[in-house]
Amino acid sequence: MTGFVEEHAEEVDRAAARIRGQVRRTPTVTTDLDPTLRLKPECFQVTGSFKPRGAFNAVLSLVARGERPTGVIAVSSGNHAQAVALAASSVRLPALILIPEDANPAKVAATRALGAEVIQEGINFANRERRLREVMAERGYTLVHPFDDWDVIHGQGTAARELLADAPDLDVVAAPVGGGGLLSGTAISAKRHRASIKVVGVEPAAADDAYRTWKSGAIQTLEASPATLADGVRTTAIGSRNFEVMFGQGLVDEIVTVSEEDIAAAVRTAWSRLHLALEPTGALTLAAYLSDRLPKGRAGLVLSGGNANLQTVATILKAE
Amino acid sequence: MTGFVEEHAEEVDRAAARIRGQVRRTPTVTTDLDPTLRLKPECFQVTGSFKPRGAFNAVLSLVARGERPTGVIAVSSGNHAQAVALAASSVRLPALILIPEDANPAKVAATRALGAEVIQEGINFANRERRLREVMAERGYTLVHPFDDWDVIHGQGTAARELLADAPDLDVVAAPVGGGGLLSGTAISAKRHRASIKVVGVEPAAADDAYRTWKSGAIQTLEASPATLADGVRTTAIGSRNFEVMFGQGLVDEIVTVSEEDIAAAVRTAWSRLHLALEPTGALTLAAYLSDRLPKGRAGLVLSGGNANLQTVATILKAE
Repeated sequence: MTGFVEEHAEEVDRAAARIRGQVRRTPTVTTDLDPTLRLKPECFQVTGSFKPRGAFNAVLSLVARGERPTGVIAVSSGNHAQAVALAASSVRLPALILIPEDANPAKVAATRALGAEVIQEGINFANRERRLREVMAERGYTLVHPFDDWDVIHGQGTAARELLADAPDLDVVAAPVGGGGLLSGTAISAKRHRASIKVVGVEPAAADDAYRTWKSGAIQTLEASPATLADGVRTTAIGSRNFEVMFGQGLVDEIVTVSEEDIAAAVRTAWSRLHLALEPTGALTLAAYLSDRLPKGRAGLVLSGGNANLQTVATILKAE
Repeated sequence: MTGFVEEHAEEVDRAAARIRGQVRRTPTVTTDLDPTLRLKPECFQVTGSFKPRGAFNAVLSLVARGERPTGVIAVSSGNHAQAVALAASSVRLPALILIPEDANPAKVAATRALGAEVIQEGINFANRERRLREVMAERGYTLVHPFDDWDVIHGQGTAARELLADAPDLDVVAAPVGGGGLLSGTAISAKRHRASIKVVGVEPAAADDAYRTWKSGAIQTLEASPATLADGVRTTAIGSRNFEVMFGQGLVDEIVTVSEEDIAAAVRTAWSRLHLALEPTGALTLAAYLSDRLPKGRAGLVLSGGNANLQTVATILKAE
């Protein structure tokens, strides 16, 4: 094992200890699909996605380092928003979340219900980073980045750490990739567990920046927010820390892409045969498995979350 | 503890040992709804429902007693069919399943895929018991009754036994009631765990024979198969062994009924907030919890299965 892996894996160990009691140890599930397949359904995590693992580690680490933040801030239209709101409220810090105006109202309401202040006015996907810097400067709050942050990466690594404790014999571990927070943490935990384990990132073909980044060896950026069912991975590029873990250090072996039809079919299979109500992003690794795009061997799939738009899912189910 | 409870609880222990390796130890799940609530999602059981617990115990017990059956037979349009088919195939016994002609074709296909012979011609809900006796006489196969059978009851009791091992402090355990196999087994395991624990059966108001049986002290029978979303509990009366456990010995404290609207709302909550893709029958105990019909205290809900008709569920989800 390289010093890099060991050093970061020890940070994942510390993250696991830090967030214990705040996040759930989700179960490892076996299915009727394949006796060797193992699932890590993060839809059962607090707030319905893996995101609180990283958000709690970031917020609790801030406090533990004595940085005395006056509040935390994040920009997100989805699962990261709820995770940061919850983590901040657990240490009685104000949380301010910027959410684009066209976001799902249910997610905005869920974020407010967790005690966060939400700003939507004038926020869109294109200007959100600039607006974030402006509001940060006004308020003096500390940013919790959704993926390009070591504390967040180490927190996300706790999911694969649990999976491999439950299923130590896995040959392959797959996780979805958007900004790369979950995949980076997964890769650190998996390569520490066994250097020969294959780590695979899965993204929609319609949002293949990570695939092109892997192939080219330099960060590639999508021109616009991609149109995909998997709305949790619409980020246009991975972060620099994520690049370092995934490709700089080479801890990710492969990026595979799946079609929108593959994603819809995986959502249907998840709901009808596995009885897991996943959001499309949460079904990405299952889509790769079902379409035979993973390396051979016993596979563990991180299923990232379950916060689906019910109308979208009802349409997918009716299409069967 | 009464001798009755102890004697039957020891049979549940033996059932647990007998079926280990054939059925799954399903997880106990905590949710964002209520920190004291615990769920036992049997949708993750082999074949997608709790039924293999009883079916494997019955079939393996038959073989262990040296009865040398030439085959097993069952009548079911749903989850019991697949469970018996799978249990029989595990000991290389032929399985013959009578399925009413109007059953869901997907369930018929699933039963055949597990290696069972299926007879549908001329079978309907009204004549199925008579046709069963005729076919049993012709073939000489041994019946695996869906609920009025001690081996089946003891096998079903293994679910609550696991739940209480994971969550020993529960004050209330709830299970759905159709014929009473699952509820009888649940009651034996719960009362053995702690005599003061409240055991609650949940059924649709449209199929309230167990409620009327509890109130009257004698088995009440519905005039016809009831029209309810919860198609797993359409049995018209509980069995005599089930009556003995539930009300003769008084191991069930209460039967509560839920409306069709309650059931639909519980399915929506399960899918959208708990991320569990339950069938309507599997959501009965959740419906009782959400509509505040359970006794006070820390509740554990047995969620019986996940084999939903996707079209039905898509309609329920769209209605939100």
